[in-house]
Amino acid sequence: MTKCAFLGLGVMGGPMAGWLATKGHSVTVWNRSITKADAWALKYKGLACATPLDAIQDAEFVMMCLGDDPDVDAVFEQIETGIKPGMIVIDHTTTSADLAKRISDKCSAKGAHFIDGPVSGGEAGAVNGKLTVMAGADQAVFEKVVPVMQAYAATITRIGEVGTGQLAKSVNQICIAGVLQGLAEGLHFAMKHDLDTDQVLKAVSGGSAQSWQMENRGKTMVAGEYEFGFAVDWLRKDLRIALDAARKSGASLPVTAVIDQFYSDVQKKGGGRWDSSSLLTRLNTDSDIIKDK
Amino acid sequence: MTKCAFLGLGVMGGPMAGWLATKGHSVTVWNRSITKADAWALKYKGLACATPLDAIQDAEFVMMCLGDDPDVDAVFEQIETGIKPGMIVIDHTTTSADLAKRISDKCSAKGAHFIDGPVSGGEAGAVNGKLTVMAGADQAVFEKVVPVMQAYAATITRIGEVGTGQLAKSVNQICIAGVLQGLAEGLHFAMKHDLDTDQVLKAVSGGSAQSWQMENRGKTMVAGEYEFGFAVDWLRKDLRIALDAARKSGASLPVTAVIDQFYSDVQKKGGGRWDSSSLLTRLNTDSDIIKDK
Amino acid sequence: MTKCAFLGLGVMGGPMAGWLATKGHSVTVWNRSITKADAWALKYKGLACATPLDAIQDAEFVMMCLGDDPDVDAVFEQIETGIKPGMIVIDHTTTSADLAKRISDKCSAKGAHFIDGPVSGGEAGAVNGKLTVMAGADQAVFEKVVPVMQAYAATITRIGEVGTGQLAKSVNQICIAGVLQGLAEGLHFAMKHDLDTDQVLKAVSGGSAQSWQMENRGKTMVAGEYEFGFAVDWLRKDLRIALDAARKSGASLPVTAVIDQFYSDVQKKGGGRWDSSSLLTRLNTDSDIIKDK
Amino acid sequence: MTKCAFLGLGVMGGPMAGWLATKGHSVTVWNRSITKADAWALKYKGLACATPLDAIQDAEFVMMCLGDDPDVDAVFEQIETGIKPGMIVIDHTTTSADLAKRISDKCSAKGAHFIDGPVSGGEAGAVNGKLTVMAGADQAVFEKVVPVMQAYAATITRIGEVGTGQLAKSVNQICIAGVLQGLAEGLHFAMKHDLDTDQVLKAVSGGSAQSWQMENRGKTMVAGEYEFGFAVDWLRKDLRIALDAARKSGASLPVTAVIDQFYSDVQKKGGGRWDSSSLLTRLNTDSDIIKDK
Ligand SMILES: NC(=O)C1=CN([C@@H]2O[C@H](COP(=O)(O)OP(=O)(O)OC[C@H]3O[C@@H](n4cnc5c(N)ncnc54)[C@H](OP(=O)(O)O)[C@@H]3O)[C@@H](O)[C@H]2O)C=CC1
Ligand SMILES: NC(=O)C1=CN([C@@H]2O[C@H](COP(=O)(O)OP(=O)(O)OC[C@H]3O[C@@H](n4cnc5c(N)ncnc54)[C@H](OP(=O)(O)O)[C@@H]3O)[C@@H](O)[C@H]2O)C=CC1
Ligand SMILES: NC(=O)C1=CN([C@@H]2O[C@H](COP(=O)(O)OP(=O)(O)OC[C@H]3O[C@@H](n4cnc5c(N)ncnc54)[C@H](OP(=O)(O)O)[C@@H]3O)[C@@H](O)[C@H]2O)C=CC1
Repeated sequence: MTKCAFLGLGVMGGPMAGWLATKGHSVTVWNRSITKADAWALKYKGLACATPLDAIQDAEFVMMCLGDDPDVDAVFEQIETGIKPGMIVIDHTTTSADLAKRISDKCSAKGAHFIDGPVSGGEAGAVNGKLTVMAGADQAVFEKVVPVMQAYAATITRIGEVGTGQLAKSVNQICIAGVLQGLAEGLHFAMKHDLDTDQVLKAVSGGSAQSWQMENRGKTMVAGEYEFGFAVDWLRKDLRIALDAARKSGASLPVTAVIDQFYSDVQKKGGGRWDSSSLLTRLNTDSDIIKDK
Repeated sequence: MTKCAFLGLGVMGGPMAGWLATKGHSVTVWNRSITKADAWALKYKGLACATPLDAIQDAEFVMMCLGDDPDVDAVFEQIETGIKPGMIVIDHTTTSADLAKRISDKCSAKGAHFIDGPVSGGEAGAVNGKLTVMAGADQAVFEKVVPVMQAYAATITRIGEVGTGQLAKSVNQICIAGVLQGLAEGLHFAMKHDLDTDQVLKAVSGGSAQSWQMENRGKTMVAGEYEFGFAVDWLRKDLRIALDAARKSGASLPVTAVIDQFYSDVQKKGGGRWDSSSLLTRLNTDSDIIKDK
Repeated sequence: MTKCAFLGLGVMGGPMAGWLATKGHSVTVWNRSITKADAWALKYKGLACATPLDAIQDAEFVMMCLGDDPDVDAVFEQIETGIKPGMIVIDHTTTSADLAKRISDKCSAKGAHFIDGPVSGGEAGAVNGKLTVMAGADQAVFEKVVPVMQAYAATITRIGEVGTGQLAKSVNQICIAGVLQGLAEGLHFAMKHDLDTDQVLKAVSGGSAQSWQMENRGKTMVAGEYEFGFAVDWLRKDLRIALDAARKSGASLPVTAVIDQFYSDVQKKGGGRWDSSSLLTRLNTDSDIIKDK
Repeated sequence: MTKCAFLGLGVMGGPMAGWLATKGHSVTVWNRSITKADAWALKYKGLACATPLDAIQDAEFVMMCLGDDPDVDAVFEQIETGIKPGMIVIDHTTTSADLAKRISDKCSAKGAHFIDGPVSGGEAGAVNGKLTVMAGADQAVFEKVVPVMQAYAATITRIGEVGTGQLAKSVNQICIAGVLQGLAEGLHFAMKHDLDTDQVLKAVSGGSAQSWQMENRGKTMVAGEYEFGFAVDWLRKDLRIALDAARKSGASLPVTAVIDQFYSDVQKKGGGRWDSSSLLTRLNTDSDIIKDK
């Protein structure tokens, strides 16, 4: 078993760190809002530290799961002096590939290693320890980390060198955006034509229109249930990251760009925290929704 | 076992009629290009007729699987005088719901019944007898037809009254358009960033970005293989039907509409017969493709 | 001076026929709803007929200004027997080029001539006799008609053979759609940032962002005034015609297609009769509008 | 007459500084690439300095016309120690409003003043001294600056406080994007239907589809001439600024976002330096272009 430090005990980080402890690793944690760290320590009988620098003191592995690029920059700045040769820093935050490379360089300068390992699978995946990790790392470093990450991840794929984990996560989010808008338009069409959406979903989900979102979100979309899942604000952050990367590489993402804008309509409705399947709400007017309930 | 007439022995109709014969139904067939009908008769030991009117002479069930609205109108005109009370006419063509209602009314006027039953599952589904049927019909009529359609269909769902089968098929195609464009943009992004697309597909297809298209078309898209599957020209026909219906019902399909236009770029490249996953070709320039091979 | 028959005395046709009479032509008119024809006859001291066939009896020129393709087909059917050799039929309705060619062929069969001459300039242009006509016709026929159309048109351009007038009108509407959506997004952005829109419009309308719509609709859009001008329902009809033609010719109109869908959101708000600049209303939420008033 | 320093003698800055000298102001200049500064000094008999700090030594007014946000940050850093109370710094670069506010705060800290004054009118406007300036500044500061800017600007509009000049410029670029895509689709449609584009442009530019771009770029677009004007790379920079601002303010810019992506297709064709009207090139395939020449 290993010594791990986990920084950032939010919706995702909390259960992930929990699995590490549960599987027998020695875990020290830190969270900006101290109450979350204390609650975690109580629940998992681990050690909550007052600063991130304290937390990483003796760690072989340092995991982070924060918000956005500036958050990782800010927390890394606080631990930089504590980074020691041989340490492996794993960032599970969804960030830009540029951030990953920048932090990786700083780790290298200290003789340490870096892996960008953004995850998918949502809160449920974290709670059940069944996340998917897309990793960017040297092969040798990756191999050392896999057994540790297996505490909370079911699928761990190395895409390539540092930064490629984040780029793969962008691919994931780009695909999701298309799937969700297509599904939203399909269901909107069905509702406008007064179709029995249960029957429609049953009929179409067996074939080439099938998607995870259709199977897992189709019915909740029709029911107007969005108070769960992966938040619009998070997806817009991720799409911003993808669109910024595309701007630099010259990739064209026309529909991703337009869906990103559509999400601003959802945000205007107060839906920043709704599940990203809430794209349907901007197509269905109130009368459409009422009609279908 | 029943007496069936099958009109239209194309890529889909041929194997469907074949399954009817194989399962023991007595099948008479007709096809505009006579050679297909003769070949079919030879293969399945059925009866090829010279006119559609001859073909439906003694039929209890009349199946059609033709091209577009005008094709169904044209063939139905030739059989109208032969429609008898109690006959059940099943149209497996993907058409507008308006066409379905119009033909249904004409059947009713003769004391016969009509079902719109567009299918999904592609050529493979037809050949394997595992199609999905989305049916619009009276419940009683539907029940009579299910045992017959089971000869070639694995999933048969009644959506509602006549026309709703076609509307459900539109939902199917709308969802596919979004899925495919999202997937195309995701893969284009991956290729522009020189990611190992096999690894990316492996990583993302386990989670919430998963789709049938990702699993079944992701690798062929990267390889630039499109000489199979569901043709761009057919999908554009279906999207035209969906967009026309939306115009009447007031449904908004912004991304479906834009993807429909993107397909015209594929058609300009000579890709009308390529699989609909060929959306990727309009994002990847020649240099992108070469770089990745 | 000539003998003219004018069929269709709506918002556009009424004043156009009025100018013909005012300029000294002998005008007989017909309108489906008889009250409009009577009111017109009273105002312009012309002759209102009970049927379109009566109206064209002695006419050298037959003008139509109706709604959509089926309307022109319907009215033409009523006058077909009265079409005489040498007559010139001018259709000012915005229709498809296919309709124009079909009606032209029927005229030719009678030894008569046809011109498609859709107009732009709106109600104001009709009232002031300053319309723009885009004509599709043989050169010789065109030349005969110009002096007559000058009664109500300031600019008369022959694009090419029959049908090209309608295609040019499609170009006009495609350009307008892009201009209006750009303007709507620009003003929405300005309002979201609490800019003084009067100053912004003053600043930007002097340069390369300038457009007729910006100069003539910018302020009314900000004020939320849409009860005038060219109706959303009409523009959607015209965009449908353009998109149908593009589908056949293989032209790609991605942004036109998406704006057409956006208009369905305006229609859902009850804005079918609002000016087409009302695209802004679907971007501005109620709170945005209130904030800016 | 006043003492001015001008930093950045590119396509725009060079002639602007030239007009200041021509109108009798005492002008010291600086340019990163020294040859441009020397050529300018020779042509206008002004003084070229080795550093920007030298150039602003005795200046009452400091003008900048650089590239993007980081460029202004970089140059300002070099002059910051030389900023004196009462100095007025005018930034003619198109930047974000955030940059404007940041630099303004730094000027205020020194008792100096800042104006963001992005321009429109292109190279021709600069060469002819007829630019449009959209200014963000305190009213009192604005009034002091107008007489000086009149050396090179024909229209100078104060939008509001610091930053609003840049936001108005975003409005300008958003409007242009819509206009250009509409025009490109209109001309593409015309060319696909073999219309005489000269006649079409003549017919449509008199009415409600009219725009500056139609009048000034319509014919060159048809001719495939793009080696002049406002470059795609610049417009993408400006759209990025607009889209970033929209993301923060919550404005929805769906069509702007999609057009921004379309420009990446133009860049892939090697068109980064082409005029922004080159959007047409991604719609017209080679065969379309050849057909029309
Ligand atoms: N939620 C989901 O379903 C998924 C999320 N993700 C990604 O995982 C990451 C975490 O998401 P999630 O756990 O849901 O987010 P939460 O908001 O629940 O947690 C964010 C965590 O980061 C900490 N944090 C944020 N900014 C800072 C900062 N500047 N300094 C110190 N600590 C900071 C927060 O601390 P504090 O408690 O003090 O606020 C909190 O512990 C994100 O990048 C997200 O995109 C990926 C897949 C799924
Ligand atoms: N309004 C505008 O700003 C502009 C309109 N146009 C185009 O001009 C045309 C006319 O527009 P507008 O005058 O505004 O429309 P209106 O609705 O005001 O008038 C339409 C006219 O057509 C008649 N009509 C419609 N359908 C039929 C039918 N089936 N049989 C007999 N008569 C029929 C109507 O008769 P009744 O009175 O009985 O309803 C009425 O006289 C349209 O194609 C429109 O797109 C072009 C440019 C600008
Ligand atoms: N061109 C046009 O039609 C229009 C341009 N604009 C805007 O005006 C601005 C200038 O455009 P334009 O003159 O065409 O651009 P140019 O590329 O011709 O000139 C840019 C100028 O900025 C200088 N510069 C750029 N980065 C730096 C840096 N980091 N440090 C020092 N100097 C720097 C360049 O110096 P060097 O010579 O050493 O490269 C050059 O003098 C841009 O913001 C553009 O968006 C606005 C309206 C129209």
